[in-house]
Formats: sequence, C-alpha cells, structure tokens
Amino acid sequence: MNHLQLFETIVSKRSFLCVGLDTEIEKIPSFLKKLKDPLFEFNRRIIDATHEYTVAYKPNVAFYESHGSAGWNSLESTVKYIREKHPGIFIIADAKRGDIGNTSKMYAKAFLENLPFDAVTVAPYMGEDSVTPFLSYADKWVVLLALTSNKGADDFQYHNEDGIKLFERVLTVSRNWGSINNMMYVVGATRAEMLKDIRKLVPDHFLLVPGVGAQGGSLAEVAKYGLTNKCGLLVNLSRGIIFADNTENFDNVAGEKARDIQIEMEGYLKERNLI
Amino acid sequence: MNHLQLFETIVSKRSFLCVGLDTEIEKIPSFLKKLKDPLFEFNRRIIDATHEYTVAYKPNVAFYESHGSAGWNSLESTVKYIREKHPGIFIIADAKRGDIGNTSKMYAKAFLENLPFDAVTVAPYMGEDSVTPFLSYADKWVVLLALTSNKGADDFQYHNEDGIKLFERVLTVSRNWGSINNMMYVVGATRAEMLKDIRKLVPDHFLLVPGVGAQGGSLAEVAKYGLTNKCGLLVNLSRGIIFADNTENFDNVAGEKARDIQIEMEGYLKERNLI
Repeated sequence: MNHLQLFETIVSKRSFLCVGLDTEIEKIPSFLKKLKDPLFEFNRRIIDATHEYTVAYKPNVAFYESHGSAGWNSLESTVKYIREKHPGIFIIADAKRGDIGNTSKMYAKAFLENLPFDAVTVAPYMGEDSVTPFLSYADKWVVLLALTSNKGADDFQYHNEDGIKLFERVLTVSRNWGSINNMMYVVGATRAEMLKDIRKLVPDHFLLVPGVGAQGGSLAEVAKYGLTNKCGLLVNLSRGIIFADNTENFDNVAGEKARDIQIEMEGYLKERNLI
Repeated sequence: MNHLQLFETIVSKRSFLCVGLDTEIEKIPSFLKKLKDPLFEFNRRIIDATHEYTVAYKPNVAFYESHGSAGWNSLESTVKYIREKHPGIFIIADAKRGDIGNTSKMYAKAFLENLPFDAVTVAPYMGEDSVTPFLSYADKWVVLLALTSNKGADDFQYHNEDGIKLFERVLTVSRNWGSINNMMYVVGATRAEMLKDIRKLVPDHFLLVPGVGAQGGSLAEVAKYGLTNKCGLLVNLSRGIIFADNTENFDNVAGEKARDIQIEMEGYLKERNLI
C-alpha cells in the first residue's frame, strides 16, 4: 500500500482511526481466559466489531512477546486473521526495533516478510543504517519514532542544538531515507501543539499519532494541526476502545466507541473537503 | 548478580569476554540444519566449547524472532541450557527494546521474568519512564545504548548541545536512574578513543563493548581506556568466534578463538593488577 492507496482507504472508510491491539491478558474479559488462545480470541472479536470504522490495526508486540512463543503464535494468528477476513486494512507492528544493519535486516524479515505486516515502528537512536533495512520491502513502511507521547520524551527528544531539537533533527535527517510512500513518523497527541512546527518539516508524510484518550491527547487538536490534503494522519486509540468494557458484551462496546471516533473523524475530513 | 559478583566472575575466569549468539541460520554448518532445532543445536555446541573462557553470553533476539514462534523456542532453550549446564554465567538479551511505561513493563516481563536473562539492552530515545520498568527486578540489569558501533551512530548520537553530545547526555541523565549494580552501557569499540571521555562521566559503570573483530575495533585500545579497578568491561565478540569455521569442527575452532581472546584479556587484567 502506498501513500495514495492509504488515503483512498481513509476516504472510503471516512476514518483515519488505527486501533491499538495492546492486548494485556490481565485486562481482557475473564470468560475469554478459559479459551485456548485468549489473546487471539479477544483480538478476533475486537477486529470483527471495529473493522468498519478502522483503517489500521496496530498490535504492540510487547503484549505478545511477554507470553513467549505462545504469544508469538497469538500475534501470527491475529495478523493472518485481519489479512484473510478484512483485506485492505493497514497493519502496523508496534515493535520499536532498530539495531546494526545485519540485525535490523533480521527484524525486517520477522515483521515484513514472515509476518505480513504493512509497517513496523523503528527507534531512530542508531541512525540511518539501522533503519534502511526496513525500507527495502516494496509497499511496506517504516514508522520512525520522532516525538513520543510519554513523559520521558522530555529527557532527550527536546535536547536542543542551535535551536534544533533532537526530534526535529530526526525528522529532517531521516525524511530523505525513504519517501512519503514508505516512511511515516510517530508524533504523540500529548504534544499536539508541536504538530504545527512538525508539519513545516514533513508537510506530506503520514503521522501515526498515539496518545489520544487514555494518555490525554485531543483528537480535535491533532486534526486541526496535523491534517494534510491527503489526510496524512493515522490516529491510534487502544485502551479507550478495546478495554472500554470487560463483560461478554465488550466487543459491541468497543465497536460503539470506534464508531463514535469514526463519526468525529468524518467531521474533520468533511471540514477540510477531503471527503 | 551485582557489580561485585560480576567482577568476581571475571577474576575467576580471567576473562571479560561476552560471546554474542547472533545465530544466523544461513551461516551455521549445513549438517546442523537437518536437526530438529538447528539454532539451539548450534548454540549448545558453541556454549559447551566456549564457556570456560566466557563470563557472558548475549543472544541477539532478532536472529530468533526472524523465525517466529519456532525461533522464540530456540531462544528459550538456549537460555535454559546455559542456566542449567553452566550456572554463574551472565546472560544478556540483546533486544534493544523501549516503549511507554506500561509497555516496557511487558518487555521486562518477557526477558527478565519469563525468560531468566540477567540483563536486557534498552534504547534510550523515549527517556526515563521507558527504562525504569526494567530496573524493578532485583539483581537484573539494564544495558542502555549510549554510543553504538555502527556508522549511523553519527546521525544523532553525536548531536551536540552546548558542547554536550547526545550520547554524553544519555550517560549523565541516566546514570542516576539505577546504580552501578543494575545499569551498564553499550559503547562500541569502533569509538574506543571516546572511552577516555566516557570514563569521566561513568567512572565505575560496566560497559558492554561490541565491535571488536568483524567491525574493526581494537581490544587493546578498549582495555587501555575502558578498564576500571573492578574491570568494568564486558567485551562482546560474535561472528569472529561463532562463525570462525563452518565444518563439523566449528565448535572446537570457536573454543580456540575464545581461548585466544581470554588469554589476551588475562594479560590486560594482569597489567592492571586485577588478577
């Protein structure tokens, strides 16, 4: 999927919602825990209930890896299920990998070849040769961390050289490693006021925006400062949708929450004459 | 294992060698590929041949993860084997993880609880709350990326604010997140000339030093600038030992290479009167 195809998906869904499958075993409804693969069973129901309102899913790999090889199987089943049952949805491995070249190549193989993800999140600290192995797959994407939504973002990302903050340097140095067709950036919604400046550096790149909802970011502000003429945003919500309820009705509640967000997003897309 | 216990292991082994188990399936001897779990079978033989000369093993998780759940099983078997057959050896998960707090907690669980690693490598970009969940395990360590051995280290790690480079800021900001008993730093041997300055910032912390051998770093220089009065170094070699030969005799050749390094290290430890 390239930049334009992603925009077309957004237009047809009237949504730029990404649902984060941060499937923490302690938080899923207890009746699911009796089943053979509770992580996958939870995801399957969430996916079926939310896919109409969603352009992307983003499993965070930590929640699967913490169960060892069994968790890895749940992740494989989840990606396969989305691909088969709901083709056309963009799937992001939130893995935050990055290592020397020959090792990043192995991580790229894990997420973009063996598992058919469309994209993988990558940490920038080790520089260009840690990122480019992920860019060698046609129609696949790197989502590079720029400005994250957590408190610790202050520790280094705002580190300032001659008026240029580290996350700004990450954007300007990396924006030519790939193109708008295979690179996007993580920019946290909790720093929505920075989006105006960030759009000066990367006017056309898609941004993956976590932090709306549980972490306190505002969707209205993200849309106001982040939208481009090809949308250019995937806004991720996780806990606010997938753990909105923990009864047997959890999937329907998740679906309603996703629909509410989709309706709000449709409004912002209409305001900009994008749909 | 704390700082002093790690030093005692180094004294008893007369070595500060860490062997990197970067077990790339394409590079292992072909006769092993017929076995049920080639990655583990390769590791088992390498471990049996090198353990006398080695204080630490460091599997790089990418090489296992690229085989999905089967690779994860090979990693589990490898860690279990070291623990059971060669207790007292320090085991590092080279995973370069790091995410928002509740997610880093899951990665910490994966590597320090479910898998009995002693330490895990962590990327600093997301700051303190992405690192501290790994520090909550008694006698376990974080190995934080500071100055890596690859070319891309130039892109951001040397980013300079008022005379302070980013990797120096990582060292000074993070050195109080934990202590010398639960934090060490990655400093590449390809930047050995920087070790003199780095030792001014972290005079007592252990440093995990990759990049000797295949990547061109010099063990003599690393020892010269990096050794402390409690050794303070774990020097990692991977390809130069584990892939030194690919016949049926590969494990014996690896053992000889490890012994050569151990003898060289013993010399440096003696020069400093540490043994």
